[in-house]
Amino acid sequence: MIKGLSTAGIGEVKNVEELVLLASENGFGAIDVSGQELRDFIGQKGLEEAKAFLQEHQVKIGSIGLPVEWRHSDEKFREGLSALLNDAKTAAEFGCTSCCTYVLPSTDYNAAHFMALATKRLKLCAQILNEYGINLGLEYVGPHHLRTAWKNPFIWDLKSTLDWIDAIGELNVGLLLDSYHWYTAGESYEDLLALKPAQITHVHLNDAKDVPIDEVLDNDRVYPGEGVIDLAGFLKALNEIGYKGAIVQEILTIEPPSESNKELAEKSGKAFEKVFAAAELN
Amino acid sequence: MIKGLSTAGIGEVKNVEELVLLASENGFGAIDVSGQELRDFIGQKGLEEAKAFLQEHQVKIGSIGLPVEWRHSDEKFREGLSALLNDAKTAAEFGCTSCCTYVLPSTDYNAAHFMALATKRLKLCAQILNEYGINLGLEYVGPHHLRTAWKNPFIWDLKSTLDWIDAIGELNVGLLLDSYHWYTAGESYEDLLALKPAQITHVHLNDAKDVPIDEVLDNDRVYPGEGVIDLAGFLKALNEIGYKGAIVQEILTIEPPSESNKELAEKSGKAFEKVFAAAELN
Amino acid sequence: MIKGLSTAGIGEVKNVEELVLLASENGFGAIDVSGQELRDFIGQKGLEEAKAFLQEHQVKIGSIGLPVEWRHSDEKFREGLSALLNDAKTAAEFGCTSCCTYVLPSTDYNAAHFMALATKRLKLCAQILNEYGINLGLEYVGPHHLRTAWKNPFIWDLKSTLDWIDAIGELNVGLLLDSYHWYTAGESYEDLLALKPAQITHVHLNDAKDVPIDEVLDNDRVYPGEGVIDLAGFLKALNEIGYKGAIVQEILTIEPPSESNKELAEKSGKAFEKVFAAAELN
Amino acid sequence: MIKGLSTAGIGEVKNVEELVLLASENGFGAIDVSGQELRDFIGQKGLEEAKAFLQEHQVKIGSIGLPVEWRHSDEKFREGLSALLNDAKTAAEFGCTSCCTYVLPSTDYNAAHFMALATKRLKLCAQILNEYGINLGLEYVGPHHLRTAWKNPFIWDLKSTLDWIDAIGELNVGLLLDSYHWYTAGESYEDLLALKPAQITHVHLNDAKDVPIDEVLDNDRVYPGEGVIDLAGFLKALNEIGYKGAIVQEILTIEPPSESNKELAEKSGKAFEKVFAAAELN
Repeated sequence: MIKGLSTAGIGEVKNVEELVLLASENGFGAIDVSGQELRDFIGQKGLEEAKAFLQEHQVKIGSIGLPVEWRHSDEKFREGLSALLNDAKTAAEFGCTSCCTYVLPSTDYNAAHFMALATKRLKLCAQILNEYGINLGLEYVGPHHLRTAWKNPFIWDLKSTLDWIDAIGELNVGLLLDSYHWYTAGESYEDLLALKPAQITHVHLNDAKDVPIDEVLDNDRVYPGEGVIDLAGFLKALNEIGYKGAIVQEILTIEPPSESNKELAEKSGKAFEKVFAAAELN
Repeated sequence: MIKGLSTAGIGEVKNVEELVLLASENGFGAIDVSGQELRDFIGQKGLEEAKAFLQEHQVKIGSIGLPVEWRHSDEKFREGLSALLNDAKTAAEFGCTSCCTYVLPSTDYNAAHFMALATKRLKLCAQILNEYGINLGLEYVGPHHLRTAWKNPFIWDLKSTLDWIDAIGELNVGLLLDSYHWYTAGESYEDLLALKPAQITHVHLNDAKDVPIDEVLDNDRVYPGEGVIDLAGFLKALNEIGYKGAIVQEILTIEPPSESNKELAEKSGKAFEKVFAAAELN
Repeated sequence: MIKGLSTAGIGEVKNVEELVLLASENGFGAIDVSGQELRDFIGQKGLEEAKAFLQEHQVKIGSIGLPVEWRHSDEKFREGLSALLNDAKTAAEFGCTSCCTYVLPSTDYNAAHFMALATKRLKLCAQILNEYGINLGLEYVGPHHLRTAWKNPFIWDLKSTLDWIDAIGELNVGLLLDSYHWYTAGESYEDLLALKPAQITHVHLNDAKDVPIDEVLDNDRVYPGEGVIDLAGFLKALNEIGYKGAIVQEILTIEPPSESNKELAEKSGKAFEKVFAAAELN
Repeated sequence: MIKGLSTAGIGEVKNVEELVLLASENGFGAIDVSGQELRDFIGQKGLEEAKAFLQEHQVKIGSIGLPVEWRHSDEKFREGLSALLNDAKTAAEFGCTSCCTYVLPSTDYNAAHFMALATKRLKLCAQILNEYGINLGLEYVGPHHLRTAWKNPFIWDLKSTLDWIDAIGELNVGLLLDSYHWYTAGESYEDLLALKPAQITHVHLNDAKDVPIDEVLDNDRVYPGEGVIDLAGFLKALNEIGYKGAIVQEILTIEPPSESNKELAEKSGKAFEKVFAAAELN
């Protein structure tokens, strides 16, 4: 498994180059960025040098975000397809094989109708990504307050997401598994053991404050090891089933952090070391 | 378009043979039955004679019902697949090309999760039917009281059903269009004109009592022409777009009717004649 | 059915505007062009005026060509996807609902492997087009000499193409039916009657010289009525099953024609009139 | 990885019970049988006792054969669907998650048309199996003499089969990888390393005589270690990528073997031990 860093949790980062350095200096072997950021990186260095820079610092591109708005109108959706083609092409040039999107647990639309529309749209996204050898990861979102943040309940757990992936029916769709959502959805070690590595496209690692589970806020996360989630168990299970991909930190907070990105990246590196050690994985 | 009769609205009918006679004597050219009833009919007469009997009375099999329980557990669903294979084979032997199921407008399950499961299950049903040259018709159900009869809203209109059909993504899935649901969903003549005949697997013709639309009960239907639905417009639109299939009566009532099936079939025949005449289609 | 004109058979045509005029002046209500030609047309007039110009001359866009190279490497295929998105968007702006590609009857690749690759690639093209409400038409190519022009036989008839469409399994894939290929594949009036209009995305009308069928050359076509194909029967059958789309001329010839496009468009108009009259369709 | 035994190579075996004993006594942890053989086994012992018997002897069901004739007419194909439902249900009762079929490298049909038909048919088989949690494994067949045994070349290598699996587009379709076909298709260690375990449904282990590769006969196999295939490399590669499923012997021979099944099973057990040892896997 490859420890990974995103900008969520380390404050302002100028560009991919800086993120690569912060990752590399603190024991991370992967970063999550957007397709646009990758193109800016190429613009700055040229493709070959950009790749060499990553290679030199032993950092891979873990995942890019899905640049398509699949949650609203057909028009909005269609408008994003060009960006998807571009991002897929760019990601493939870096050997990145994962593109992820999150799924909000409630919606103002009729939930059943929206599920039908979303199924069709993500099916097309998956097929386009597949042309570039990229998998699509769907991240269910567990925190309870979001289940009623919009009018109608949608889905927020592992089981429903797996069934949805089955309904989408494309070979390259899998889970973005986030320890935070696994925890807030009330899921177990055994739920993870039942997965096959091919079902997991990408992983996020975050910790939760010590409040009742149904009061955990999505944007009030803490660094791995600072909270109450059994992250050692989470990591052990993923290792046990043979997951070999990236495990990326994504600390969403209410206020932006006040430390420098150097300090935060160092803190993140130590946090990862601690929980990987607890899982006997260092 | 072919006028059709089902047992719903004509009381007790012994078997397919009797239904064929009631249809044939009252101007109907099609009947809706179950796969099991067709097999009983074959059991009674032999396949060749059964087909000859239909031929002689100029009655076709309009549609059979989907014999699979796709609304509950995976186990229940799987158990029905054998019956589906049998019914598809039997229906194909009679040249029947339509198999239909209705979609309740609310559900006790999480609506989004259930939509994902239902999409996958109906996809498989469609593929099995397709092997036998049979289309799968989905009937949305409009009456407002059923939208809250179970815990979570599902879908109940033309637009959502078409989007769902798109998400199912199989070539042989279309609408079972019922004038009663078209009316209670508040849909228009123009909504029908926007359809292509290939989108319509089967049609039901029923009329509604003169009560506010949101008080119309699903099981309190009246015979065509006795109510307030613009059935002439409904039929004209279907004819205009080139629909050539069966249009079958399905009168659901709170109390079973007290007249004989002979009287009710005659009444039905006259009702159809009246509304077809109003649509200038006789 | 709408008579249609393409540039194949009328020599050099400057741009869409000129083609529209040639069509309109000679009784044609549709033209076939490329997505790029449509964008040039917009570039010249602006979208609204371009649409108004078509409207004023009562000419529709019958079909655009598929701008993707699906017959060679994965790389080549991927490169065309951007153009496909653009062309689909442009075509949709003009209300065009058809995009077509031809299928050569032999290939230098292993035929089975190539069929698998082509199935996957055209599936994606169809899904992208579907986002824009556009159908994908596959044109089988009948002339015998092309069946051995490359190393391995591929497909060249109606039945195989329909089975392939079934295997592609997308809702919006149908036939581009060309009288020339129908004739050279040795197909009948009854073969056409067995089709449903939804299976036909687009139609070409051409005539063949009076030589043995297995000597008919793909690029040696004559104007409708000048040859030996039963075009009256072809048109009657399409009308009988309810086809309502465009029927477009595409005269491929060994030498470019020597007359002016005005003369050739007039000749084409009269040719269409003649065969439509023979089919009692004017 | 689990060593497995089939009847191919050990002569006459009365029933599943006997095969289980032969497997268990010689170090095998899996057997390949047919759905019908499993039902006979249940008929003889009852389901619970049959399962207990397997459990007690530490033998799993590796894979069943696909009971559907997908290589000929639509009618033949349809007739097998009932058996497929039954076999899937039976296999699932034993926790078996694999069902396999072989793909002949040539065909008397038009290869492209047959590929389209086969794609559609195997898609349906895969969906039915998926309802029961079972994967469908496709076995390409490498020996050169079979590539011209029928009129038209079909497919016979890893790359084509993977592309076909992509075209079938179902989540649960993978490879049945046979060392014999890997060898005769001229494939390498690196070809195996490029696979993910999720792409491999099942594995066969056989050895080939020391004759030129293009003269190797499909039905003239020898026991693992007796021939010239680099089986240690084959096994190492599978282990390296994380394959954890069954590896089953399937010795096809021109003449039935003359030794007793006891002797042959013992010989097989020793053969497996030898090549697993050479791969440092015992």
